[in-house]
Amino acid sequence: MRYEEFTIEGRNAVIEAFRAGKPIDKLFMLDGAQDGPMQTIKREAKKHDTMIRFVTKERLDQLSGTGKHQGVIAYAAAYEYAEVSDILEAARKKQEPPFIILLDNIEDPHNLGAIIRTANLAGAHGVIIPKNRAAGLTAAVARTSAGALNYTPVARVTNLGKTMEDLKKEGLWFVCADMDGTTMYELDLKGPIGLVIGSEGDGVGRLVREKCDLVASIPMKGDIDSLNASVAAGVLAYEIVRQRSL
Amino acid sequence: MRYEEFTIEGRNAVIEAFRAGKPIDKLFMLDGAQDGPMQTIKREAKKHDTMIRFVTKERLDQLSGTGKHQGVIAYAAAYEYAEVSDILEAARKKQEPPFIILLDNIEDPHNLGAIIRTANLAGAHGVIIPKNRAAGLTAAVARTSAGALNYTPVARVTNLGKTMEDLKKEGLWFVCADMDGTTMYELDLKGPIGLVIGSEGDGVGRLVREKCDLVASIPMKGDIDSLNASVAAGVLAYEIVRQRSL
Repeated sequence: MRYEEFTIEGRNAVIEAFRAGKPIDKLFMLDGAQDGPMQTIKREAKKHDTMIRFVTKERLDQLSGTGKHQGVIAYAAAYEYAEVSDILEAARKKQEPPFIILLDNIEDPHNLGAIIRTANLAGAHGVIIPKNRAAGLTAAVARTSAGALNYTPVARVTNLGKTMEDLKKEGLWFVCADMDGTTMYELDLKGPIGLVIGSEGDGVGRLVREKCDLVASIPMKGDIDSLNASVAAGVLAYEIVRQRSL
Repeated sequence: MRYEEFTIEGRNAVIEAFRAGKPIDKLFMLDGAQDGPMQTIKREAKKHDTMIRFVTKERLDQLSGTGKHQGVIAYAAAYEYAEVSDILEAARKKQEPPFIILLDNIEDPHNLGAIIRTANLAGAHGVIIPKNRAAGLTAAVARTSAGALNYTPVARVTNLGKTMEDLKKEGLWFVCADMDGTTMYELDLKGPIGLVIGSEGDGVGRLVREKCDLVASIPMKGDIDSLNASVAAGVLAYEIVRQRSL
């Protein structure tokens, strides 16, 4: 994952960055400033666990790139999205059949982060998310991924179904997670594979599901409806790991 | 899991209940009350996603059991801990070899809730947590368990190692999760089993680990350190499910 750091200067810009969920690592604020917008920034920083350093105006002038810091400069981390071709290239470099995790409608940033973390450790070559109705690569995602976002490429595509069609031409086939499917232990999950995980409430959308070659279910022996989406992704990803190791 | 509802009346009692993480389902407040403690209660309710109904003094008098509501009555859900013997009894009733998940130092309520959810769906008969250094059965745990707390017994014990000794006499043996262990696919995880999961940072404590018969590892193919604790618990629990189904 390409990682860059850039600065955001000025009160409104910093407040907006927080509210947009941008991953802000460090915050420099003018010591003693107590007005409304500065209080708002302090509150947002607290909410997002961002460390604040209170500094002099001279220090801010030094740090400023624009000269218009208004008493506040934030350092934001920017995670750039990868391309789908980067993911295939990662598999090629490792001389492994591609293993990609595709997420349909995962809106919770903690689930997205945990799944990127799992993808990294299960040896998946990347994660693909749709542009609409998905959590972006925010600070919460970066944090929950426990560093995996620095290693595992995440591509964002306009149309998940279309991307699956393209990947089928590259030899991939797709297994989607659904309670109505065949028990995962009975399916052959070896070879170049895309694992499609849906949201906890709605599962995988109909159009995406229709593009799947197989539907896999996790055995459910309990009283409640479904596993947490990131746990389900972990259980399925590791069934693929197990079968690949046979 | 035994589930009861009870009322908490009075400003300080309600504020304390929120701060102790008690699972408060409903909150009745006197319409128009604006003083400090009432503002605090509103803030706590917002933070915990508790719905507030603003009602008249007459309605509060009706609802009150003590007559001393001070303008606020909360309805709290109480989850009672089970006994270890209840867990063994649950296995006996289902005529299955016991399958118990033991948690060492899981302090994050979201992980605890997600693991209780996984325990329910993987067919574990119960969860055991130590009294010290563990998350209790708070509102966040209840919410993250997605209802599983109503079905899956959770026992809290003073000394996890001692409980393991007692359970060994009942025929159980124990597998603990650790990166240094044998790959889980190579271990025989059938029969009456206790799965011991540690915290993400520290893993399973030494004294508890020494009581384990086997140490199982999840294959790690990535760049970062470890899976999320609830994902690791899910992957291991389902390896037990798989082996039991053979």
